[in-house]
Amino acid sequence: MNRKVGIVGVGAMGGAIARRLLSQGWEVTLWNLVPEDLDAFDDIQGARRAKTPAEAASVGRVITSVANDQAVRDVTTGPDGIAAGLPEGGTHISMSTVSPEVVTEMAAASGATYFVSAPVFGRPVAAEDGKLWVALSGPEAGRAVAKEVLADVSQLVKEFGDAPEAAVHVKIAGNFVIASAIEAMSEAFDVLSRSGTDPRLFHEMMSDSIFASVIHQNYGRIILDEAFDPPGFRLALGGKDIGLARDLAQHAGTSLPFGDILAARFATAMEQGYGDKDWNAISKFRDPVG
Amino acid sequence: MNRKVGIVGVGAMGGAIARRLLSQGWEVTLWNLVPEDLDAFDDIQGARRAKTPAEAASVGRVITSVANDQAVRDVTTGPDGIAAGLPEGGTHISMSTVSPEVVTEMAAASGATYFVSAPVFGRPVAAEDGKLWVALSGPEAGRAVAKEVLADVSQLVKEFGDAPEAAVHVKIAGNFVIASAIEAMSEAFDVLSRSGTDPRLFHEMMSDSIFASVIHQNYGRIILDEAFDPPGFRLALGGKDIGLARDLAQHAGTSLPFGDILAARFATAMEQGYGDKDWNAISKFRDPVG
Repeated sequence: MNRKVGIVGVGAMGGAIARRLLSQGWEVTLWNLVPEDLDAFDDIQGARRAKTPAEAASVGRVITSVANDQAVRDVTTGPDGIAAGLPEGGTHISMSTVSPEVVTEMAAASGATYFVSAPVFGRPVAAEDGKLWVALSGPEAGRAVAKEVLADVSQLVKEFGDAPEAAVHVKIAGNFVIASAIEAMSEAFDVLSRSGTDPRLFHEMMSDSIFASVIHQNYGRIILDEAFDPPGFRLALGGKDIGLARDLAQHAGTSLPFGDILAARFATAMEQGYGDKDWNAISKFRDPVG
Repeated sequence: MNRKVGIVGVGAMGGAIARRLLSQGWEVTLWNLVPEDLDAFDDIQGARRAKTPAEAASVGRVITSVANDQAVRDVTTGPDGIAAGLPEGGTHISMSTVSPEVVTEMAAASGATYFVSAPVFGRPVAAEDGKLWVALSGPEAGRAVAKEVLADVSQLVKEFGDAPEAAVHVKIAGNFVIASAIEAMSEAFDVLSRSGTDPRLFHEMMSDSIFASVIHQNYGRIILDEAFDPPGFRLALGGKDIGLARDLAQHAGTSLPFGDILAARFATAMEQGYGDKDWNAISKFRDPVG
């Protein structure tokens, strides 16, 4: 396989992935909705600009890293879209966190090309260090191509089979478990501090023992320090993902009791103007005590 | 300090602590409500039987590892209790998970001796390997004695200051965060399996990445395998601890929304006869979908 890839969307994550692939010797053709955001890549060896998503996809494999369902549709199925530009047998690697519905829709629109989902866990800095964790699903031939590209940005690519939406299910469920950990820590810290016991010592102990996970270690500290700005992950996006989780539960004919509490928490935080803060800021909004 | 310690209560955890201390060369004086449970220690070098809790305490430092509030009271303040047998300046190390109220009560009843709380995270097998995580609080002189004893059963002794009840707050809050992780994983696994995406692969991925914690790794597997028998920690005890967490929140004038959901989950599991199963069995009891 040649080392050419297109990247559509150079926001925080797409940009970090682009820099990482360029540093690993890939020839990267970039497209972005706001062309000025591509200026930062002009001096990097191996970086090229495309005039359309179709042109970025013309190299045979293309990553999309965009904001939401509508953005994936826009760059994929329009007249200058990826579906028009990707050669037969090419692969579209969708790394955005989007709904299962739009994944199914885009997969159906892919014709003689492969559409795979590859949403990630980890922050942009992890992408720059080649340390993302990637969930991958879709047609086997497309997964094989995606694995070659993603090996250079990730420490783990976990495969979830042929259905393109499976990896998106995983991402949605994962963000639900993360948000639940945020809420559980918030409630515990709140009760402890009101009872006169130091929540920081509690967090240190948990982080050094039964909850020695990056989520509990890092997010617990963000909650305690109220370090919500700049956001590592925007609260508005976290709220969107909890909405996706509740939709998934409803479609599957089950309930998500923790999801209901989280949805209320995100809604309150949004109303209070915290949409652009870090999603750990939901910890500031406790229930009224009746 | 000589290496003599009394142990009152040789259930799963107290017995494991006793075996570990004996293996590390301690001279251990044992008392148990059911004397037959002491037979297993008769052939172990360094093990002695006491006729009363007072006698076990007479060596100058004593660990209690008993079932609940009433059991702590019984072995501490009766005529043959620890408070009567512990010499002036001696230390009572309470390792049971009990209410903050009973801790305050026992500390007040301790007279010229020291009462410290030292509840643990980790299973009995961790005690036998010297790998428990211990939260410790109480008068400084008592903590110093406790640390010498507990160093031989634990990989971490974290101190929470002078108030004996602080370590119990930590234990209660910790079990609340654990139970929340059980519920969050249960909900996520349920939604994924109903959506056609393999929850085992999801669990593997989370356990290898953002949730590489012993709780998520081990408990996730127990939930997926429905390996609720024999219990690692009895569901009835887990439900008791969630009750303690909700009481603590109420006394502190705040709410515990995840705690309310967990309480309902434990209540349903108890009604269905799962009190003696592993507490991960709450995962079997989903909400009716309205």
